[in-house]
Amino acid sequence: MDDHIYRVIELAGTSTTTMEDAIKNAISRASKTLRNLRWFQVVETRGRIENERIARWEVILKVGFALEDTL
Amino acid sequence: MDDHIYRVIELAGTSTTTMEDAIKNAISRASKTLRNLRWFQVVETRGRIENERIARWEVILKVGFALEDTL
Amino acid sequence: MDDHIYRVIELAGTSTTTMEDAIKNAISRASKTLRNLRWFQVVETRGRIENERIARWEVILKVGFALEDTL
Amino acid sequence: MDDHIYRVIELAGTSTTTMEDAIKNAISRASKTLRNLRWFQVVETRGRIENERIARWEVILKVGFALEDTL
Amino acid sequence: MDDHIYRVIELAGTSTTTMEDAIKNAISRASKTLRNLRWFQVVETRGRIENERIARWEVILKVGFALEDTL
Amino acid sequence: MDDHIYRVIELAGTSTTTMEDAIKNAISRASKTLRNLRWFQVVETRGRIENERIARWEVILKVGFALEDTL
Amino acid sequence: MDDHIYRVIELAGTSTTTMEDAIKNAISRASKTLRNLRWFQVVETRGRIENERIARWEVILKVGFALEDTL
Amino acid sequence: MDDHIYRVIELAGTSTTTMEDAIKNAISRASKTLRNLRWFQVVETRGRIENERIARWEVILKVGFALEDTL
Amino acid sequence: MDDHIYRVIELAGTSTTTMEDAIKNAISRASKTLRNLRWFQVVETRGRIENERIARWEVILKVGFALEDTL
Amino acid sequence: MDDHIYRVIELAGTSTTTMEDAIKNAISRASKTLRNLRWFQVVETRGRIENERIARWEVILKVGFALEDTL
Amino acid sequence: MDDHIYRVIELAGTSTTTMEDAIKNAISRASKTLRNLRWFQVVETRGRIENERIARWEVILKVGFALEDTL
Amino acid sequence: MDDHIYRVIELAGTSTTTMEDAIKNAISRASKTLRNLRWFQVVETRGRIENERIARWEVILKVGFALEDTL
Repeated sequence: MDDHIYRVIELAGTSTTTMEDAIKNAISRASKTLRNLRWFQVVETRGRIENERIARWEVILKVGFALEDTL
Repeated sequence: MDDHIYRVIELAGTSTTTMEDAIKNAISRASKTLRNLRWFQVVETRGRIENERIARWEVILKVGFALEDTL
Repeated sequence: MDDHIYRVIELAGTSTTTMEDAIKNAISRASKTLRNLRWFQVVETRGRIENERIARWEVILKVGFALEDTL
Repeated sequence: MDDHIYRVIELAGTSTTTMEDAIKNAISRASKTLRNLRWFQVVETRGRIENERIARWEVILKVGFALEDTL
Repeated sequence: MDDHIYRVIELAGTSTTTMEDAIKNAISRASKTLRNLRWFQVVETRGRIENERIARWEVILKVGFALEDTL
Repeated sequence: MDDHIYRVIELAGTSTTTMEDAIKNAISRASKTLRNLRWFQVVETRGRIENERIARWEVILKVGFALEDTL
Repeated sequence: MDDHIYRVIELAGTSTTTMEDAIKNAISRASKTLRNLRWFQVVETRGRIENERIARWEVILKVGFALEDTL
Repeated sequence: MDDHIYRVIELAGTSTTTMEDAIKNAISRASKTLRNLRWFQVVETRGRIENERIARWEVILKVGFALEDTL
Repeated sequence: MDDHIYRVIELAGTSTTTMEDAIKNAISRASKTLRNLRWFQVVETRGRIENERIARWEVILKVGFALEDTL
Repeated sequence: MDDHIYRVIELAGTSTTTMEDAIKNAISRASKTLRNLRWFQVVETRGRIENERIARWEVILKVGFALEDTL
Repeated sequence: MDDHIYRVIELAGTSTTTMEDAIKNAISRASKTLRNLRWFQVVETRGRIENERIARWEVILKVGFALEDTL
Repeated sequence: MDDHIYRVIELAGTSTTTMEDAIKNAISRASKTLRNLRWFQVVETRGRIENERIARWEVILKVGFALEDTL
């Protein structure tokens, strides 16, 4: 097995609907510019309240991806 | 911009259905007696098991609200 | 089972005698003005030293109680 | 009330569909060999990404159960 | 020495000028409705950035006060 | 000196009387089925409140024991 | 409200004068190459001592910015 | 992909020679009675000192293994 | 009020009888060589088990004392 | 002394041989595309087990480097 | 480069004026009896409140210094 | 068994060769002036990078020793 190196970045995904959508939105956005995404880890779950309701879910997550030639 | 002050309280919401409902229940209950709720943050997610199933989701969260005249 | 909501507050109980008395003092005091106390959790145990002896035990604890109509 | 003793074990549940299913799968699996499951607590939420999507939710949780005669 | 009981609340003070002003603003606001404030502890220091500058310091702090007759 | 291997398990002991009894109860119970118990570490101290009094101390602890032939 | 995605990076700002200048220096530097900076959070405050005086304040902070088209 | 469930146990490996041997000894011992070991994570590194030298490395680690039919 | 400086040291007190005696033993021992002890804080509570019983309580604590002329 | 600014990134290095090689591999890889690497800090040490042996060491580390003109 | 050894001690500096002065006071006091002070790290920021104002800033910090011949 | 008291100090060992040598260097240095060293615990592992290589390993560790007559 090769000695792969991964980079871990931190993202904050948001969603007006659900906690899981906030995570998916962040991963979807990261996929536009980064290849080889491999795993994620939820760091914190929070949200904004407006008019006595959850207006926005905010999930901070770490995302790891395998490095090829650019860091 | 004014120098607003916020208070942060800790609540434990529960729900027999889902994790997110436990959060919504807590925020809904807090809205009955507190105005200006602004944000929440999940502190811990737990639950009760009965008859080999999740009988109750319990989510401990912090909720922040803007202070007006009463603390 | 109903979807109960609880509030969690933080207290610092003190006692000149023992660690457990500091906890009991805090719960006893909270019971004067709050109903439906359900659980506590020790956050930190500390104390003051005077004349080379423990003059005061200080225990910081979280106390949870069921919300009825007032937050 | 008796002085019950509980044991707490750590499990990692996975699911290809949702975060909550990962938790339910772990509790369901534990119920096959352990009796008296009482509570759970989420320790960490992570997941695997394949082809720019969440391929697997992984939730690490602690599960507590009452001890009878076997530890 | 009496066995005093203290309550600890969490506040978020803000200021457009300095970190210390955010703390002072929170304590000043708390003093309007609470007596016997005794100590504070900084929990987190953050802020908002606008137009490439710090527009608002936000300091989350815990404040302890001695309980008399109301909790 | 040999290269011993230890296993660490997590228990929640309870007691209606004192914090230390909750710890002793857990260790006593573990001794029924496990040999070679060597050390413990308190992870969390909590309790249930009923009728404005501590009805049950709950102490979560880790217990380490030397492994012989069974894991 | 749109479902914005943010990235969070970690910086270490330094200053020979004050703690707040170390933070401002880091944000000012980040603004040269990153747009849409929105918030920061202090992770750690440290410093170098030379000749019995603080020669350099070092503040490690996280900075969040809204993602547009480049990650 | 199936929805696998894993169990995570905590071990303390020791070695008179090196830190890595302490880890290997623990994994080797666990392999005698547990199948399907998949990953480990170092929780703490400590050791005993005798006669001014490191007499024993002690590494506490978590080890995860896939569950088949026994928990 | 003067600008006092305090030093904080870490001790591990032990006792064959109770948790509180372990703390008192540490403070008593520290008082032999240090003046102006002011406060303590419990960092960790652990113990040794022998013959299925607690043979020794071990409490790690921080102790603060006012500095006069020697550090 | 100038007021330097540093950026801190998170990497996961792996190695089939040793823990230290996993760290060196990550730093070596980072050096290909980043200049001015100054320090690292180990965040977590883990690994994969295959056939009852450590098949891969995985070390997550933070790496700091001085910023010149590009962030 | 030599293999230097450093010692890290914990101090609590106080000041009636500012947070930074509390840090400087602690370092200044440490310099009277310790040579080769090299770095400090803020562990906790707190303070005393009197008459609704901050009467004393208290900053707990770690200070590292190079060891020569005395520990 | 006697009620021994231990003191715990914090050291930072460095080495140009390996992580374990950094630990051994710190313990060796501590042994010159302190008797009765009993255990150590790794608090943090870091290092300096120069010319794209690890120039110095830095390991912060706690070291415990039994107190006799001097603190």
